Amino acid sequence: MSFKPKDLKERILHRLQIAQGHLKKVLAMVEKDQYCIDVLHQSQAVQHAIKETDNLILENHLKTCVSDAIGNGKKNQAISEIMQVFKKNG
Amino acid sequence: MSFKPKDLKERILHRLQIAQGHLKKVLAMVEKDQYCIDVLHQSQAVQHAIKETDNLILENHLKTCVSDAIGNGKKNQAISEIMQVFKKNG
Amino acid sequence: MSFKPKDLKERILHRLQIAQGHLKKVLAMVEKDQYCIDVLHQSQAVQHAIKETDNLILENHLKTCVSDAIGNGKKNQAISEIMQVFKKNG
Amino acid sequence: MSFKPKDLKERILHRLQIAQGHLKKVLAMVEKDQYCIDVLHQSQAVQHAIKETDNLILENHLKTCVSDAIGNGKKNQAISEIMQVFKKNG
Repeated sequence: MSFKPKDLKERILHRLQIAQGHLKKVLAMVEKDQYCIDVLHQSQAVQHAIKETDNLILENHLKTCVSDAIGNGKKNQAISEIMQVFKKNG
Repeated sequence: MSFKPKDLKERILHRLQIAQGHLKKVLAMVEKDQYCIDVLHQSQAVQHAIKETDNLILENHLKTCVSDAIGNGKKNQAISEIMQVFKKNG
Repeated sequence: MSFKPKDLKERILHRLQIAQGHLKKVLAMVEKDQYCIDVLHQSQAVQHAIKETDNLILENHLKTCVSDAIGNGKKNQAISEIMQVFKKNG
Repeated sequence: MSFKPKDLKERILHRLQIAQGHLKKVLAMVEKDQYCIDVLHQSQAVQHAIKETDNLILENHLKTCVSDAIGNGKKNQAISEIMQVFKKNG
């Protein structure tokens, strides 16, 4: 993976660290027997943070690798890889 | 949150720790510039693990808190809380 | 299914008819070779309308059938049915 | 939208008609007060059929319009359109 713009890598890592922090809190909340609904909201915050990172990675992938692949006659493989990710997400 | 059966708490914590391990690997993969599609698959594994935990927590919530709430005339609040979680998930 | 309040049935049917209208438009757009992205947005509108109907049905189900089931010692089956729906949605 | 292979259009239209049939059945089930959980399963079948159509349309879009756009210097707009669809789906 190459990142464009270059600071994108830092932004992705930063968001993943935030997701890690949220996930650590989910564990602490279960550990302390906190209210299920509050745990579920915290867990959904983790998933939201991870999904935002996925979107950044996918957008970067389209702008770099996929664009190169289409230029280099490797279009079909690149598209089939994206579709696999997209189908799992649905 | 009270857990039924009692070992459910251990099972939930165990799965959350697995999700933490997967998420740590996502960070390492981004750090090492690994292939975007591989990072996205790893990230989807994290989300899958977290969703399985959510399902365990929600099922436990229905069996304990919600059942109590319905017995105690607090049905509407309990249902509105579940619907909030459900709507965010869609 | 019994509906509470009674006009809920009309509201659900009305929204489903809206979803039918949107879906018919998706077909017409594909028929006329319209731009893929526009078709996808229209299709997502259908899915959004159907999900809103699902939420109304699920909320009604929790308020009526599930509450009755919990009062009648059929809690486990009722909860397992809801979890099945919830898991498919994730 | 241009379709590759040409019979793809027929396949997409066929699946959308199946989704229409399923949706019509959801309406009939609500009309006849059938069991909520059965209605929800039927409704999820509609959504599944529509999502499969979306995937066919998106894959075709990547293979035709997006590949052309990348060749014609319209990469950024094409990618931003896909990301919009992808984000709504999450």
